[in-house]
Amino acid sequence: MFGEFEFIEKLKAHAQMAQKAARARLTQSIGDDCAVYKNRKGNEIVITTDLLIEEIDFNLSYTSAADLGHKAFSVSASDIAAMGARALFTLISIGVPQSAWESGFVEEFYRGFNVQAERFHVVNIGGDISRTPKHIIVDSIMIGEVKRGHGVLRSGAHPGDLIFVSGELGGAAAGLSIINDRLNITRYLSAIKSVREEESKQKLISRQIMPNPQLLLGLLLGQKKLASAMIDISDGLSSDILHLCRESGVGAKIDAAAVPVDPNIYKSGLANMANSELLNYALNGGEDFELLFTVKPRNVRRLYRELNGINISQIGVVTQEKGEVLIIENGKARPLIAGGYRHF
Amino acid sequence: MFGEFEFIEKLKAHAQMAQKAARARLTQSIGDDCAVYKNRKGNEIVITTDLLIEEIDFNLSYTSAADLGHKAFSVSASDIAAMGARALFTLISIGVPQSAWESGFVEEFYRGFNVQAERFHVVNIGGDISRTPKHIIVDSIMIGEVKRGHGVLRSGAHPGDLIFVSGELGGAAAGLSIINDRLNITRYLSAIKSVREEESKQKLISRQIMPNPQLLLGLLLGQKKLASAMIDISDGLSSDILHLCRESGVGAKIDAAAVPVDPNIYKSGLANMANSELLNYALNGGEDFELLFTVKPRNVRRLYRELNGINISQIGVVTQEKGEVLIIENGKARPLIAGGYRHF
Repeated sequence: MFGEFEFIEKLKAHAQMAQKAARARLTQSIGDDCAVYKNRKGNEIVITTDLLIEEIDFNLSYTSAADLGHKAFSVSASDIAAMGARALFTLISIGVPQSAWESGFVEEFYRGFNVQAERFHVVNIGGDISRTPKHIIVDSIMIGEVKRGHGVLRSGAHPGDLIFVSGELGGAAAGLSIINDRLNITRYLSAIKSVREEESKQKLISRQIMPNPQLLLGLLLGQKKLASAMIDISDGLSSDILHLCRESGVGAKIDAAAVPVDPNIYKSGLANMANSELLNYALNGGEDFELLFTVKPRNVRRLYRELNGINISQIGVVTQEKGEVLIIENGKARPLIAGGYRHF
Repeated sequence: MFGEFEFIEKLKAHAQMAQKAARARLTQSIGDDCAVYKNRKGNEIVITTDLLIEEIDFNLSYTSAADLGHKAFSVSASDIAAMGARALFTLISIGVPQSAWESGFVEEFYRGFNVQAERFHVVNIGGDISRTPKHIIVDSIMIGEVKRGHGVLRSGAHPGDLIFVSGELGGAAAGLSIINDRLNITRYLSAIKSVREEESKQKLISRQIMPNPQLLLGLLLGQKKLASAMIDISDGLSSDILHLCRESGVGAKIDAAAVPVDPNIYKSGLANMANSELLNYALNGGEDFELLFTVKPRNVRRLYRELNGINISQIGVVTQEKGEVLIIENGKARPLIAGGYRHF
């Protein structure tokens, strides 16, 4: 048996071969009217696109151009992961005002983007660059593939399936509230700080600014047919579990005590252990880009064996009460209200 | 033998079957983390993306939401056409400010977009919607396919190949200058107008606001292996011929008298027949979304037979002088300077 890191190394070597294969499949990359790549027999094409808008989704007072590149990669990659697919190619549409163009924003953006793309063995094959009157906008397009029939949809959950979530939740939202506090310089200067708290706060800020997609985990869950349904946590657990339940025509019961709250939230002094605020971050925070997925009971033993130490938590069970999501806290059940961000 | 319209009808029926096939190939459309569709054996995937930014690429003083939808479809479809590919699917990322959302802009945009999508038998399978602080932005993503090796690149032209262009040129730019004149109400009211001139002006304005992609022609040139290289005319003939020549490592000689100038430009009184302004519109205008392509001499007879009356003009010949584009006017050759729009 080998541990999590050896396992990830193995997957990385596998992905590296895949990247070479991806490059070999390119008939035409950047430089023509379209990008062109060769098909592989027996698979399905998976595609997603995500807009990032200045002053709405990010703010230059706390996001560098390279950080924005990092995030643009991660948000779309997270969607590919949530299909159980292998990420292959990206296209980036970016619009910047004249001043940002002149200060080298686009180059810096691509530097951050490419670090992530190389790390996850994904190849950029095209896009568009435009001038804008004022704000920076990015559209991140990503293409992946799954073996035919191996794509994990939101709609595949059945009553009795167990509900899992990867990693820890609430960190990205907690990071954002720390950033907002710091933008308010008076509050920042008056706050009591310890070195340990500062370290935790930095980690939370990184969760917000530089999220990482769960591409390896997603691919594994798809390839091994382990997940019956899956979604990435971008809006917040409370919203995303509801999306999954609605698409599957099922309900869910979540055990509050089993929800993995990012420990840096209490380590940073942002909320204490007894505080409902702590659970609130994990349930409604959003932008964690972890995976929420369901697994048939008969596959649970195989799941733990195949994941080989990758951090997941069993947080509940799928019920037959269509669209009804309950959370059990201190032995009492209450409806879980969908929180999280809405554009309109 | 049958004419152009019968031919287009035949292609349309063919495309309708293709659209049903496209829908049948969708595993997951709008509503999951990604869209998923099935591959077809032995083909290549073709993908493009185009940004349209308010105040840069369009202006709401003369573009309705539905018109913008029409144009968003056409600009990307034109890129698919220029690869000799069949358009299959689209994804639309759209960002609008709160006020536009409330006035139903997005709905109207999709109405215009869908008219074009249905007309050309393309299926919308996803995208993203976001709020913006002020301006409307659209990213139009289109996916197509070609039989393996049938994609027409910019880089395939050889010395001796003949140069063709579809339709008529300069109309979109002429339309834009008419629009700008009308925005200047004093100039508009003082202009001498005749009914006939007005009709021509309306046609030019339509060329600017509601361009149509040459999807049928492009597909035919690809499927029948008629074009050795191809590009769509979005920046202007003078720029786009240079792109094609550079990618192919060749030069070109263009016959000014053979360049098909949109007749509405002189019918509208915007420029007269003897005026160099007329040729200038056709050479540097841009946004015509016609196809510029090269054909081996041995394929020219087959070209005219297969196109069966579709409007194309032979405008010149590919030379071996790498990157040198000459235009012959009244027996004299001069270098053709790349005009047209640049973002930065």
